[in-house]
Amino acid sequence: MDPIERLTTLFERFPGIGPRQAGRFVQFLLRSSPSVRRELVDSVQGLAHSVRQCPSCFRYHASESANCGLCANKNRDDSLLAVVASDADLFAIERSGTYNGRYFVLGGTVSLASEKMSGLRVAQLKKYVTSHKNLTEAVLAFPANPEGDATAIRIREELQEELPALKISMLGRGLSTGSELEYADADTLKNALDNRK
Amino acid sequence: MDPIERLTTLFERFPGIGPRQAGRFVQFLLRSSPSVRRELVDSVQGLAHSVRQCPSCFRYHASESANCGLCANKNRDDSLLAVVASDADLFAIERSGTYNGRYFVLGGTVSLASEKMSGLRVAQLKKYVTSHKNLTEAVLAFPANPEGDATAIRIREELQEELPALKISMLGRGLSTGSELEYADADTLKNALDNRK
Amino acid sequence: MDPIERLTTLFERFPGIGPRQAGRFVQFLLRSSPSVRRELVDSVQGLAHSVRQCPSCFRYHASESANCGLCANKNRDDSLLAVVASDADLFAIERSGTYNGRYFVLGGTVSLASEKMSGLRVAQLKKYVTSHKNLTEAVLAFPANPEGDATAIRIREELQEELPALKISMLGRGLSTGSELEYADADTLKNALDNRK
Amino acid sequence: MDPIERLTTLFERFPGIGPRQAGRFVQFLLRSSPSVRRELVDSVQGLAHSVRQCPSCFRYHASESANCGLCANKNRDDSLLAVVASDADLFAIERSGTYNGRYFVLGGTVSLASEKMSGLRVAQLKKYVTSHKNLTEAVLAFPANPEGDATAIRIREELQEELPALKISMLGRGLSTGSELEYADADTLKNALDNRK
Repeated sequence: MDPIERLTTLFERFPGIGPRQAGRFVQFLLRSSPSVRRELVDSVQGLAHSVRQCPSCFRYHASESANCGLCANKNRDDSLLAVVASDADLFAIERSGTYNGRYFVLGGTVSLASEKMSGLRVAQLKKYVTSHKNLTEAVLAFPANPEGDATAIRIREELQEELPALKISMLGRGLSTGSELEYADADTLKNALDNRK
Repeated sequence: MDPIERLTTLFERFPGIGPRQAGRFVQFLLRSSPSVRRELVDSVQGLAHSVRQCPSCFRYHASESANCGLCANKNRDDSLLAVVASDADLFAIERSGTYNGRYFVLGGTVSLASEKMSGLRVAQLKKYVTSHKNLTEAVLAFPANPEGDATAIRIREELQEELPALKISMLGRGLSTGSELEYADADTLKNALDNRK
Repeated sequence: MDPIERLTTLFERFPGIGPRQAGRFVQFLLRSSPSVRRELVDSVQGLAHSVRQCPSCFRYHASESANCGLCANKNRDDSLLAVVASDADLFAIERSGTYNGRYFVLGGTVSLASEKMSGLRVAQLKKYVTSHKNLTEAVLAFPANPEGDATAIRIREELQEELPALKISMLGRGLSTGSELEYADADTLKNALDNRK
Repeated sequence: MDPIERLTTLFERFPGIGPRQAGRFVQFLLRSSPSVRRELVDSVQGLAHSVRQCPSCFRYHASESANCGLCANKNRDDSLLAVVASDADLFAIERSGTYNGRYFVLGGTVSLASEKMSGLRVAQLKKYVTSHKNLTEAVLAFPANPEGDATAIRIREELQEELPALKISMLGRGLSTGSELEYADADTLKNALDNRK
């Protein structure tokens, strides 16, 4: 396989990228100056060298220290832990600017096909909740879809068994900002009515 | 203006219809059999003759009796009243199959430009809540947008003044079914965190 | 069936309208003033009374005279006839402002399922071409899809049999305005290459 | 700037990629095995080492020989040259399977802002047409947009001056496959009528 096809095939594995856009990426790199290609090579190699996984929350970061900036920050609330599926979900919550607790990245959601939790950091999460004595509540911040719900059920069981005193909550369900009732699905309206306040 | 243009102009006033689709409606009627056009004329005239507004909830209906089927239904829960902006929102909640209380159609939302409640059935709503003695809670079921929120604030004030003992709630806010955290806006994530449970 | 449901069902038969939008149309009419509903009734009745089909080109029009304005216009080129599937396609060509010939509305395209031309005005078209002595060319202006192509093949056969001297052409195929080669389908690129000039 | 931000910024320069998707690419690489990152580094470096520009048509390729496979292929028709803006447009024509001539990649289109042809391989194209004695026709295969049209005008002038005997054609314009007349723009309908056949 020649380098053009090889790189095209590789870009097709990037999330959301089809053959046509993969081909366009390769053309972009071919047309770019050598310094752009070198920058890409350096940055990808840099990921391997300077990015590490935080041993506390398991997100990827590039701090000099082992722990990430969020885990090292002493002003965050130790009593609250948001358990999220991915680094992207952690960023989404941080961007909202409304959460000041700690995070734990589970590494995915339960697959509905297999119902297995292999690959998820369940043991590490259990260790986190037992070793952080100030923790009083874990918020299961998973997506509002069947995979997220299945994950919440399983993680709740695991945490209750491990630490019965821990309060476990889930993100509120209801109308999302901007929703019209007319276009809301039945399940969302049910949640909005059940969670009225 | 010839009848084709006149009818096209009229269809352009229908919600969500532009000139091109309005023209297509006219072509459809031109190609249709006379019986289809007669059926349309009869149905529209029928609206005027047999459709009435329910004197209790103010939605439009075509029951033989003055009251609509929902207001006449003795199995609905008299203690709960959903105050909705429109007939369409009432239908959306009914379709969800999760609500068994009563309804009141306010007739719109506060316009943010004018902040006026003219055109809304505020006096009628006050009369409803004072005259239905079993009522204990009013759910302000408005859309999750600035107009809906402004309406809720004003209606809450009016109802509290009228009947301080009445519990007033709003539809729950949070992740709607199917939402990914990554794509949720900051306000929705804030609500989802605030309303965790 | 009550008038609301009856009218909703009727609007669902309008082109491109689903149950939800049909319901919104009915709500719109319910909320509208009686004069809007009367205007709709009058306009639809007006269609039946003052709209007629042109005996020459078969499009619908509302001129006082039997013939439509285009057929009555003496400045149009009698030597050229555009055969179109529908009134909407006739309007599209008129709007482009680049055609000064005559029109004939065939009333549809061949269905690929049945391959039948029933319902199409084939006999009337044959009569048109034999009775208009100045006519030298018929442009088969059908959509560039399989139905349009099948219709062109059949109509070409019929016209050649009827009037062998008549020149028969089809709309040019190739890149439409704004097309990028990268996104063009193979068939369009083939036509663009074949029809290069 | 840490490696995560640096790589995100770099991916944002890829065609069609915004900050969110750029972030997702980085997460994908972080979650991937080291071998995937190494493969990416190798492939990008491979582009620089084994990809060359064909000295005849100027497209990028990875053949062992200097000339690309298309230029080396003796079965292609030497009398016909498709002048295209980019490698992607060359691929699009090849994919259509309907062209057997030669190619020349101009390297872009005229910018409407500057109307300059700097950066385009005009001198190289002139040299191509004078040095290939079997060539009889150049097809200006540019996109059907204002930039493509401006480029065609300028290149036509240059080629006519250089080699007056050369036939110069453009891709056919008209309805693209699947087009309905109703949705076609006026310019496309004009071309379809002008190019009827």
